[in-house]
Amino acid sequence: MAKPPQTAIQPTRADDYPEWYQQVIRAADLAENSPVRGCMVIKPWGYRLWENMQRALDDMFKATGHQNAYFPLLIPMSFLEKEAEHVEGFAKECAVVTHHRLEPDPDGGLRPAGKLEEPLIIRPTSETIIGATYAKWVQSYRDLPILINQWANVVRWEMRTRMFLRTAEFLWQEGHTVHATAAEAIEETERMINVYADFAENWMAMPVIVGSKTAAERFPGAVDTLSIEAMMQDRKALQAGTSHFLGQNFSKAQEIAFQTEAGDREFAWTTSWGVSTRLVGALIMTHSDDDGFVLPPRLAPSQVVILPIYRDQAQRAEVLEYVASLQKELMAQTYAGLPIRVEVDDRDVRGGEKKWHHVKRGVPIRIEVGPKDIEKNSVFVGRRDQAKSVGLPRAEFIQTIGKTLADMQQNLFDRALELRESNTVDIDNEAEFRKFFTPKNEAQPEIHGGFARCYFADEASIDALLKELKVTIRCVPRDHNDVSGVCFATGRPAAKKAIFAKAY
Amino acid sequence: MAKPPQTAIQPTRADDYPEWYQQVIRAADLAENSPVRGCMVIKPWGYRLWENMQRALDDMFKATGHQNAYFPLLIPMSFLEKEAEHVEGFAKECAVVTHHRLEPDPDGGLRPAGKLEEPLIIRPTSETIIGATYAKWVQSYRDLPILINQWANVVRWEMRTRMFLRTAEFLWQEGHTVHATAAEAIEETERMINVYADFAENWMAMPVIVGSKTAAERFPGAVDTLSIEAMMQDRKALQAGTSHFLGQNFSKAQEIAFQTEAGDREFAWTTSWGVSTRLVGALIMTHSDDDGFVLPPRLAPSQVVILPIYRDQAQRAEVLEYVASLQKELMAQTYAGLPIRVEVDDRDVRGGEKKWHHVKRGVPIRIEVGPKDIEKNSVFVGRRDQAKSVGLPRAEFIQTIGKTLADMQQNLFDRALELRESNTVDIDNEAEFRKFFTPKNEAQPEIHGGFARCYFADEASIDALLKELKVTIRCVPRDHNDVSGVCFATGRPAAKKAIFAKAY
Repeated sequence: MAKPPQTAIQPTRADDYPEWYQQVIRAADLAENSPVRGCMVIKPWGYRLWENMQRALDDMFKATGHQNAYFPLLIPMSFLEKEAEHVEGFAKECAVVTHHRLEPDPDGGLRPAGKLEEPLIIRPTSETIIGATYAKWVQSYRDLPILINQWANVVRWEMRTRMFLRTAEFLWQEGHTVHATAAEAIEETERMINVYADFAENWMAMPVIVGSKTAAERFPGAVDTLSIEAMMQDRKALQAGTSHFLGQNFSKAQEIAFQTEAGDREFAWTTSWGVSTRLVGALIMTHSDDDGFVLPPRLAPSQVVILPIYRDQAQRAEVLEYVASLQKELMAQTYAGLPIRVEVDDRDVRGGEKKWHHVKRGVPIRIEVGPKDIEKNSVFVGRRDQAKSVGLPRAEFIQTIGKTLADMQQNLFDRALELRESNTVDIDNEAEFRKFFTPKNEAQPEIHGGFARCYFADEASIDALLKELKVTIRCVPRDHNDVSGVCFATGRPAAKKAIFAKAY
Repeated sequence: MAKPPQTAIQPTRADDYPEWYQQVIRAADLAENSPVRGCMVIKPWGYRLWENMQRALDDMFKATGHQNAYFPLLIPMSFLEKEAEHVEGFAKECAVVTHHRLEPDPDGGLRPAGKLEEPLIIRPTSETIIGATYAKWVQSYRDLPILINQWANVVRWEMRTRMFLRTAEFLWQEGHTVHATAAEAIEETERMINVYADFAENWMAMPVIVGSKTAAERFPGAVDTLSIEAMMQDRKALQAGTSHFLGQNFSKAQEIAFQTEAGDREFAWTTSWGVSTRLVGALIMTHSDDDGFVLPPRLAPSQVVILPIYRDQAQRAEVLEYVASLQKELMAQTYAGLPIRVEVDDRDVRGGEKKWHHVKRGVPIRIEVGPKDIEKNSVFVGRRDQAKSVGLPRAEFIQTIGKTLADMQQNLFDRALELRESNTVDIDNEAEFRKFFTPKNEAQPEIHGGFARCYFADEASIDALLKELKVTIRCVPRDHNDVSGVCFATGRPAAKKAIFAKAY
């Protein structure tokens, strides 16, 4: 049966991947552009997804000993100047507050007034303002470690924005910790990238590669940046989370020092780590298809939607009663330790349109219930990861719902892993490297080979080549450093093997 | 037994109430001033309290049909100009973003660069930016109602700030709804003030008066503002939450219009409602005492803290094992439908200091467990609302913990209600009114009579008197409008009776 063209996503992934991405967001009612340049409105369905992500991550942060706190949105300009690399990294794209009121403009309208003595910037990240506070809190080794996370909004004045992936304002969490030793801080940096990898793989069903950034790709001011990298369906990489070992760079710039047990004064060791609403973009691009959004069941705001079908008021009463009991029984079942989330859609909308509404927004399981189903004590089940709907006995459907959702979650992960594995190759010479990253199709310059795993000798010597091909080093995976080889570009001996890719 | 002077709060409430408030916040480790003018750092203990408040309120919002979403932090200046009263109310105190990057200043340091074509303001409240979005969403009566809430930070450039009560940046939620009829919008406005009253009384143990603001005290742009008003221990009023019926003021200014079922085009009716981190300040000033913070059990991050007591490592192992099993059994009990929240404090800190630490931060119940208690199978229990600790058989303590917490919650509410009732009087003449609001003690100008319930004819005619005495009309309580009387100041006939008070 041909699908109604008005409900599937146009264009398809194969036709125009970037535009398909925008259309999925629109069709799934996740977000929209706002009247404010580069800022988006996160709509209820998108925000519920973000809330589910927040809840899961927050539990993981608390289970690893962290507490939440809240620090100011505004940062005095002079704070940014303290760490040289940091200011270099953020000064070019920050929103600057210069006045504290508006007054009538003689030419009509309003104009800024009340000039501030020192401009304030809206936090692009909070190392500087949090560090200034930590400098007061940390006096003795007894005050350490400090393990704090903040859920917040940040602003980076990006010139080219794309919903969820790169917006001027975005929502995120930023962990900021202080330790007495380098070893402890490094352990924390690794602990948190592992939390992110766990979340990406087990909640988002998105396989990731964990590794270290090279010097040129590090967070401004970090000694080491660990990241998780995922492959999107267009084979580009997306950095989904980072965890930074900041060494003593920020503690020296901000005087975060403590008295050791032996009585000496030492600078502390700090870390920071974060993920953002960018993860929603990653989720969309990992699993969605030409019919719209596909939600991994573990994060889906509704895991099951029930669509009652009836022709008149008498049927309506009967069907709604049946549906209510079905919903109750389903909600008494569990998946991943939580009650099943079930929604009933009894809006007065044509059946086909209603079904496609939920397909497009990615609800894992749709069930249709009409008088005939009630008669047979069965339900008509559509799985978002399968094309055909099937009739199932009611009892069987209810008893297996947890297992079905678990299967779907696993299927999504397996499919994404298969895509990555089949588009990741080892490359040891420049010719092959060039060919790998040359678009296969002129109409779709974004589509190329995928991830190339290559030895490289040093970053500077391959910089020009990477710029030419618009390829970046995503990370040096932590499980690929046991042997040495030959640099794919220069032929020189090389100890490091990295993932090279085009990236978001 | 005299309390160690270093642990109780100095000054006491009777000595200097405003300074006592600051010292309770400090002693309870709730928040501190930040390096940024008027902005505070909310520390982990204070933030956990806010998280508990958020969770409870969010559940109540969802149970009344609302969904969360997120709108931009920044608002184009021109948006503010659209509603005349609104701009009047907020233009004088908003942070204005005028530039989008920083560049090196030839004189050293940095300076703002990249001037924006149109200045942006940081939201002081979001009616204007959300309304602009709703104008697009609302086309037909089928799109209504829109019932959305946002958890966000806002900035109002207050000149005189006080932690939690009035800060330049604060955290809050703001509900923004759109309806097809005035009646529905008014019903929503009332529904939400009732949600706030329910939360204040049943979660915060803080009795409140629900009423309407008079014209001069209304939200800028509102047709009617409902508020909940509470009496603090210094007898001043604190507005703890507001719900605004905005009529068609904003929908006309922003073109939020829809086609009715009959085919006509009509402007919609909107509401907005919010509570903020100010509630934490209200909680502190309602229940705390000269020993520090007192937490209502229902919102306490930890409801019970266990303090293990031992002299050596052998005792330590025995005590910690006993404590772990005690914690587990307590956590299996419930209060208000949730498992009891139990913390164990095994820090290496002197016993007295440790006990006072938890007294000051307001943990409802402390239990000390040492070898002798284990021998007797008893626990030594200190309730935050009682001076003396008592020994109790372990089993009895565990079995009654839910009831004990419920009693404490009720005691706090009763005590606060008793304070309000005994400091609320009906006044029908100006002489008595003046006397009531004259400080009883020159050293403490804040302490005065409390709440005066008076008939008044019209606001303008008593304005000068109120300004002189620094008294405001808090609200016209909804249960005091059934009869009419005589204006306390002018002697003219009056239909409205209001609560008059000095206020935060």
